[in-house]
Amino acid sequence: MAVATTQTLEALCVNSIRFLAIDAVEKAKSGHPGLPMGAAPMAFVLWDQFMRFNPKNPDWFNRDRFVLSAGHGCMLQYALMYLTGYDSVTLDDIKSFRQWDSKTPGHPENFETPGVEVTTGPLGQGIANAVGLAMAEAHMAARFNKDDLELVDHYTYAILGDGCNMEGVSGEACSLAGHLGLGKLIAFYDDNHISIDGSTDISFTEDVSKRFEAYGWHVQHVADGNADLDGIAKAIEAAKAVTDKPSMIKVTTTIGYGSPNKNNTAGIHGSPLGGDEINLTRENLGWTYDSFQVPDDAMSHMRKAIERGSSNEAEWNELFAQYKTKYPEDAAEFERFVSRTLPADWDKALPTLTPEDKVMATRKHSQACLNALAPVLPELIGGSADLTHSNLTELKVSGSFQKGAYENRNLRFGVREHGMGAICNGIALHKSGLIPYGATFLVFTDYMRAAIRLSALAEVGAIWVMTHDSIALGEDGPTHQPVETIASLRAIPNLTVIRPADGNETAGAYKVAVENAVQNRPTLMAFSRQNVPNLAKSSIEGVAKGAYPVVDCEGTPDIILIGTGSEVGLCVEAAESLTSEGKKMRVVSMPSWELFEAQDAAYKESVLPKAVTKRLSVEAGISMGWCKFVGSEGDTLSVETFGASAPGGTCMEKYGFTVDNVVAKAKALMS
Amino acid sequence: MAVATTQTLEALCVNSIRFLAIDAVEKAKSGHPGLPMGAAPMAFVLWDQFMRFNPKNPDWFNRDRFVLSAGHGCMLQYALMYLTGYDSVTLDDIKSFRQWDSKTPGHPENFETPGVEVTTGPLGQGIANAVGLAMAEAHMAARFNKDDLELVDHYTYAILGDGCNMEGVSGEACSLAGHLGLGKLIAFYDDNHISIDGSTDISFTEDVSKRFEAYGWHVQHVADGNADLDGIAKAIEAAKAVTDKPSMIKVTTTIGYGSPNKNNTAGIHGSPLGGDEINLTRENLGWTYDSFQVPDDAMSHMRKAIERGSSNEAEWNELFAQYKTKYPEDAAEFERFVSRTLPADWDKALPTLTPEDKVMATRKHSQACLNALAPVLPELIGGSADLTHSNLTELKVSGSFQKGAYENRNLRFGVREHGMGAICNGIALHKSGLIPYGATFLVFTDYMRAAIRLSALAEVGAIWVMTHDSIALGEDGPTHQPVETIASLRAIPNLTVIRPADGNETAGAYKVAVENAVQNRPTLMAFSRQNVPNLAKSSIEGVAKGAYPVVDCEGTPDIILIGTGSEVGLCVEAAESLTSEGKKMRVVSMPSWELFEAQDAAYKESVLPKAVTKRLSVEAGISMGWCKFVGSEGDTLSVETFGASAPGGTCMEKYGFTVDNVVAKAKALMS
Repeated sequence: MAVATTQTLEALCVNSIRFLAIDAVEKAKSGHPGLPMGAAPMAFVLWDQFMRFNPKNPDWFNRDRFVLSAGHGCMLQYALMYLTGYDSVTLDDIKSFRQWDSKTPGHPENFETPGVEVTTGPLGQGIANAVGLAMAEAHMAARFNKDDLELVDHYTYAILGDGCNMEGVSGEACSLAGHLGLGKLIAFYDDNHISIDGSTDISFTEDVSKRFEAYGWHVQHVADGNADLDGIAKAIEAAKAVTDKPSMIKVTTTIGYGSPNKNNTAGIHGSPLGGDEINLTRENLGWTYDSFQVPDDAMSHMRKAIERGSSNEAEWNELFAQYKTKYPEDAAEFERFVSRTLPADWDKALPTLTPEDKVMATRKHSQACLNALAPVLPELIGGSADLTHSNLTELKVSGSFQKGAYENRNLRFGVREHGMGAICNGIALHKSGLIPYGATFLVFTDYMRAAIRLSALAEVGAIWVMTHDSIALGEDGPTHQPVETIASLRAIPNLTVIRPADGNETAGAYKVAVENAVQNRPTLMAFSRQNVPNLAKSSIEGVAKGAYPVVDCEGTPDIILIGTGSEVGLCVEAAESLTSEGKKMRVVSMPSWELFEAQDAAYKESVLPKAVTKRLSVEAGISMGWCKFVGSEGDTLSVETFGASAPGGTCMEKYGFTVDNVVAKAKALMS
Repeated sequence: MAVATTQTLEALCVNSIRFLAIDAVEKAKSGHPGLPMGAAPMAFVLWDQFMRFNPKNPDWFNRDRFVLSAGHGCMLQYALMYLTGYDSVTLDDIKSFRQWDSKTPGHPENFETPGVEVTTGPLGQGIANAVGLAMAEAHMAARFNKDDLELVDHYTYAILGDGCNMEGVSGEACSLAGHLGLGKLIAFYDDNHISIDGSTDISFTEDVSKRFEAYGWHVQHVADGNADLDGIAKAIEAAKAVTDKPSMIKVTTTIGYGSPNKNNTAGIHGSPLGGDEINLTRENLGWTYDSFQVPDDAMSHMRKAIERGSSNEAEWNELFAQYKTKYPEDAAEFERFVSRTLPADWDKALPTLTPEDKVMATRKHSQACLNALAPVLPELIGGSADLTHSNLTELKVSGSFQKGAYENRNLRFGVREHGMGAICNGIALHKSGLIPYGATFLVFTDYMRAAIRLSALAEVGAIWVMTHDSIALGEDGPTHQPVETIASLRAIPNLTVIRPADGNETAGAYKVAVENAVQNRPTLMAFSRQNVPNLAKSSIEGVAKGAYPVVDCEGTPDIILIGTGSEVGLCVEAAESLTSEGKKMRVVSMPSWELFEAQDAAYKESVLPKAVTKRLSVEAGISMGWCKFVGSEGDTLSVETFGASAPGGTCMEKYGFTVDNVVAKAKALMS
């Protein structure tokens, strides 16, 4: 381990990064110093020599994107942000690392700290987000660039470690990135042979470089990532020169570099060094500065990023001014995208239906809505995890997004649900105004739940299109039939879950979803495989309120039936039957719990009056949570066990979803 | 496409498989004929020439294991089971494919059809299960085999397709399999270049063989998987000869082989052929038999499996008889394992604690329980997804399960939660009596939810050990802090979820988990990162009832506080405070909803009497579903938003989890 007597400027900068991380973690008594200490050299070279960004304007459109996929190492990123002059990370913020209300939370949060692009921490997500960011860049470039004016032109850089590389989601995304030839994606693999449990010899001995070659990436190796700054720089140049493949630079480093006793151990991954070891590290690296102190030379060097960034942004603004003059329509559209301004009357494109219209599955209504919106919302881009013709998510106005055809809007994810989720998050967080949607069977949200959760946490305007939403899907059987899935998704804070009953409600759901998207909120919609009737009183407006009556009576109802999705039709039929027997019936369609809960008390009372205690919910899923709406004197018609492989109609009948049974349960309540 | 004039015996057998699949799918008007038609040759060679199994005894211990990871192609497996003489799949069962109550559901279900080892359908799960099956074989062999008597000696074969290969979970498991050198795992990659959306050119162009080489597998290629039966056989022999690496045999086939118009298309993947195309396929393949008719020659050839199997099993029984004579103790232990008989008084090893015992996090209590049980339950085997020293799941009595050390019981999964889940399912379904446990942070159950769901569906006796169970984990922040996770897991049918309050409850949870395991039911336990006190009235017995009072009063309580896990202590303190103000308090600890729901009505009434309507639940998670227990006049102290990065104590306080706040909310209810 080198002991620097007189420190080069680079060494001063690199060690500034290291010690800010060490000191912040120490003060917080919590955090991960190992990666910042080991990856400081590569990150310094990247931020100092290659990355184009404006610390004073984290939203500059054409900035390079940086993702720390190994999010636990966030002090690396915070240190760089502070050193290069971001207003969002001051020295006080560094000192408040991992404290209540600080701008420097324990893992990077884009919704908390301007300059942080995505939220990482759960391993594998960040690199997959980075694939999405690179896809967004490629698409926007293909869409807007002109031969003489390349408006969109930036790189996506990511740092990932062994942990991310073990996670399946990263393999999914990187396989797709290789297929797509995303030439402006450059990933640094922090090859330090250590994960939480110890040496990677314990469980991770694959040939990572070979795997990435198998994916079709350009792969390089920098053998001494601790000291060979030149080698790192050359590798980045070489990576940039390869324009038809993503690049992976394996950088061999020592975790916790500089710490004499704890370097290269699992212990330094996620614990403060402790006072004694910090002193030894200072000695070892020849660091004579106080804690949180940055040598002036290093600071002024790093702060040159401000001027560079300002100048880069000014150049781009000039370029955009020319673009605006020469291509006013494209410029206007570009600005409309980025400002997240929806076109006037965009929602008028959504279909409305009546009971005379053809009976159709709501997944077909979804298809109609997507295709009605696609021409008026060119920012809509997305696809299915290899279930395009089941999810019905193809945009007919466009082709497949492929190498050499990035202008297309149909994303072909392959059987990679989790990768799809994280990629969509990345596309949204590129902040070019693209509205991504990802689709699969509802039950397979289980494969991608971590990405869906992140969409809710990280303020991602994504749309999750989920079909085949109950036992009614039939023969594919219990592994494919959701029973508990909707409930489990309703559980996620900040996620709007909508289960439309028919065509109008599907249109209403898409209206909400798009409006949510431009406000950086995700929406998940669940659609049926099987046909459902178009209800007389269903409406787009009703969906926005979350629940509304579709059948009503004079005065106070004897009972309220609350249905969702395909079961609303059942309730309507049951209500007819009971009405003919003289009962006063109300049927409430409740496409979304969250939207209903957000209404004011008066509206909620009007839909579900406290005085009416006889309430029956009807939904082909578990009853969990329904007590909130049906009350202690209400009842539920639900599915509490896994499904079965049989035709859908048989399943619904065997599980009690018949008009007769709804009538019977309603009568039991009223007796 | 070859037109066979006189069919060889092999061709008769292979086409029998094909046409059974074609006919069954046609009759059901639903299903996936493409893979069975394309993979019939490789499956025939495997089942006919290599696989050791007894159709008349699907439970013969030393059978080779077969997994159809591409589970949608299950008619392939059902056809082979019928042809080789399994009692569980008769011709009537074939004809009832995908019908209510049939033994031939739309995806293979081990709990439905004896002879099916695991439940597949969701892609990627099966191959990961197969890794688990192979690990179980290796462990049992290392544990029980003697130099002169190799009791445990069988292969695990799997067929997977492009879909499974795209899924991240398969990469996780295969990377681990390569690291572990599982030489008796042989996977067939049905390389047909087609997935649901069409050609793999659309999104899956990686070099799969190279990737598997990177994982450390032995890789071969059979270029003509449609006709080169010899080549397939040679490849299997070569694979078996490689004993220190798992083997992958890429077999290039044509999906829907034999169908003149639909072969090699996505359409034949998942739809019936239709009458016309069936006729053309018959012509094409020279098939003159009726639907569901199998030529006598083929049937009698295939049925030789009965005699082979019977003979193989008899040999093994003889071997076991010798083993029993020579090594009676090992034999007794082996039989105890396989019969799932727990040792007498095993549960006496579990610790019990009093309030005088050291205050500890329940994850530390979990560690104590695991290590108390490990010596008395040698069938307990498991590990963490790279969080061993956070989950505290290391068994001190054993070493790490590694190549050359398969007798060890600590499984080192690496950062591969989903792979871990599916592997544990495979270990349990090996049916050697091993009780696997898998661990990670509770929030990362999101990464492995599909495998947890399958453990509940497929009757898997697995134990899920989840730590860091609330916002109280602190600084790692919202990406790591569960809020909705427990609720989302309670939603899964057949899964017992337990959140112990202290040491006694942790012991009680483990008692339930182990008892569940030997009854093929999964259990998930959630443990705290932070210290909790040992409660005076907590008990092992109480946990088994799901909920029980830990504080009580004379007569009817004024209010009942219901807490779980770390919040029970808070309730107890609040109750003390309110008691001193003259209130009559009951505190119910509710470690498990499912266990409580399973009690009889009298018990439930005794714990939560209908007459006591003032009830407050206290749990650092969402309130969803609590209305069931607190009723419409009750209240909840919950967390409805994501967490924050700050010290755990600060988080709990900021989110309202203080004694004062519990007291305040209780008073508000009582006023």
